[in-house]
Amino acid sequence: MIIGALEAGGTKMVCAIGHENGKIIKRTVIPTETVDTTMPKLINFFLNEGIEALGIGCFGPIDPDINSKTYGYITSTPKLPWRNFNIVKAFYEALKVPIGFDTDVNGAALGEGTWGALQGCEVSLYITIGTGVGVGVCIHGKPLHGLMHPEAGHIILRRLSHDTYKGNCPYHSDCLEGLASGPAIEGRWGKKAYELEDNYKVWDLESHYIAQALANFILCYSPNRIVLGGGVMKQKQLFPLIRAKVREYLGDYISLAKINDNIENYIVPPALGDNSGIMGALRLGYQAYLSF
Amino acid sequence: MIIGALEAGGTKMVCAIGHENGKIIKRTVIPTETVDTTMPKLINFFLNEGIEALGIGCFGPIDPDINSKTYGYITSTPKLPWRNFNIVKAFYEALKVPIGFDTDVNGAALGEGTWGALQGCEVSLYITIGTGVGVGVCIHGKPLHGLMHPEAGHIILRRLSHDTYKGNCPYHSDCLEGLASGPAIEGRWGKKAYELEDNYKVWDLESHYIAQALANFILCYSPNRIVLGGGVMKQKQLFPLIRAKVREYLGDYISLAKINDNIENYIVPPALGDNSGIMGALRLGYQAYLSF
Ligand SMILES: Nc1ncnc2c1ncn2[C@@H]1O[C@H](COP(=O)(O)OP(=O)(O)O)[C@@H](O)[C@H]1O
Ligand SMILES: Nc1ncnc2c1ncn2[C@@H]1O[C@H](COP(=O)(O)OP(=O)(O)O)[C@@H](O)[C@H]1O
Ligand SMILES: [Zn+2]
Ligand SMILES: [Zn+2]
Repeated sequence: MIIGALEAGGTKMVCAIGHENGKIIKRTVIPTETVDTTMPKLINFFLNEGIEALGIGCFGPIDPDINSKTYGYITSTPKLPWRNFNIVKAFYEALKVPIGFDTDVNGAALGEGTWGALQGCEVSLYITIGTGVGVGVCIHGKPLHGLMHPEAGHIILRRLSHDTYKGNCPYHSDCLEGLASGPAIEGRWGKKAYELEDNYKVWDLESHYIAQALANFILCYSPNRIVLGGGVMKQKQLFPLIRAKVREYLGDYISLAKINDNIENYIVPPALGDNSGIMGALRLGYQAYLSF
Repeated sequence: MIIGALEAGGTKMVCAIGHENGKIIKRTVIPTETVDTTMPKLINFFLNEGIEALGIGCFGPIDPDINSKTYGYITSTPKLPWRNFNIVKAFYEALKVPIGFDTDVNGAALGEGTWGALQGCEVSLYITIGTGVGVGVCIHGKPLHGLMHPEAGHIILRRLSHDTYKGNCPYHSDCLEGLASGPAIEGRWGKKAYELEDNYKVWDLESHYIAQALANFILCYSPNRIVLGGGVMKQKQLFPLIRAKVREYLGDYISLAKINDNIENYIVPPALGDNSGIMGALRLGYQAYLSF
């Protein structure tokens, strides 16, 4: 069957047509502008392709609770044109197919869980360190909801005493995202993150904050494996630094062999490369089709 | 039917016989000494009562993974006589009934989810602030596992700058438990927690740490409601202090009406009083019976 997939981001919209086995047969990228200019282009991409379902992995916060009055809305996003926009309704009215809707990172966790590095995990964690920091969680193959959905990119971290950067989260200043996102690196060091590749101090500090967050996530979720993706994680030297510091932060308390003896297989890059999100959206579409 | 329930704690063992509807018909408390002295007393309590299943909510860390080689073990506990003890096997050999086994706090979350304040929650959180700090999580009525189980009482917190107490967690010094457990209060202020009832500074600081942890848990789990129990929470004045500070820590990001307008119903004491744990153990026993 043919399924539409949309990875809706704050700067760009990745659109794809694919099959339920994860194969993508057509793909395009559309810049995220206003609702009025962008939505018609997106709908146009999906029209007349014979799709039987659409999956949307969306920047947040969103309302993914199907029983809620505001189900399908992008809610309190700082991207003003999209705030309180019912994206699910807009697509449903245009396409008349079942729609799966979740956060971009819950979608990516589902994609890696279905076809990538998180296959077979009871508790799957996908974390992106990019323009923002996002955390996606799937439990027994289902994205985690509850009152809304995880927003664990905004947890409060203990700052390192020599770090004087004030942080750049508009809501909390120096939460995880405020201290460790790509723009935070640029704000702290005055250069683009990829231009700092050879500066050991940058990645030492960065790995401290990411490792501290991972230690907390391990204690909270007890994940079977963690995928770390997003633009900042293109700096592959971060992986060994993070793994070593996670062990330090945890101390001896979590003394499981799977973490201590095999941490290279516990904290890993995405197996689907840059496709975790769009393949996850495809899977969201397929799940919506099955449960319709 | 008749079910046995055991809330196994580091200082005492609460034992009960009850029905699948949560009614407890017989109950006793046995001090936690060594395996050799305590286990025969526990088995003796449950023998000849006609129980058809046993539920155990146990101090941790434990191995609750039924597919693991060390399923049923109490693992790296600091209580040395109990370390690496297969408590499930010991009870099964003596009683020959299906056994449900989980952490004490996952059990308490299940108890409150079945009969108490967490009924109807997709994501249930039960937190105890007592001798230790423990976090139990149920998702769609099932306790959260994964690599092992949540150990979120040990997350790393941002310290308040005027707090010079070094913390008392043997693994991490100043994690949540190290800064906010009952013994941490006593270590910091030099008096028993209940003797400090009138000292505003004590509860102001305590509520800061608990609120910071709750804000992180809200961001991680997106719970539908949070129950706060344990000895320290007998200080009821903590509730309004914690609620106000949770809102401060979250900022405007999580702007949901359920949290902001109705926080008195979002962060609540146990509806089952001191029985969340033992009733949860009863439910664990019943679930084991059903899935046997
Ligand atoms: N090779 C790289 N090394 C370090 N940082 C990078 C690299 N590529 C992108 N980034 C940073 O990642 C952020 C973009 O994240 P990305 O995951 O690509 O997009 P988004 O989060 O917007 O979906 C930017 O802040 C950028 O500086
Ligand atoms: N009324 C009270 N006010 C403040 N702290 C209390 C009170 N009662 C007990 N505590 C503290 O709670 C801790 C015991 O926690 P509790 O939940 O009763 O047992 P446990 O955690 O061992 O199962 C002790 O450190 C004690 O000081
Ligand atoms: Zn933030
Ligand atoms: Zn600790």
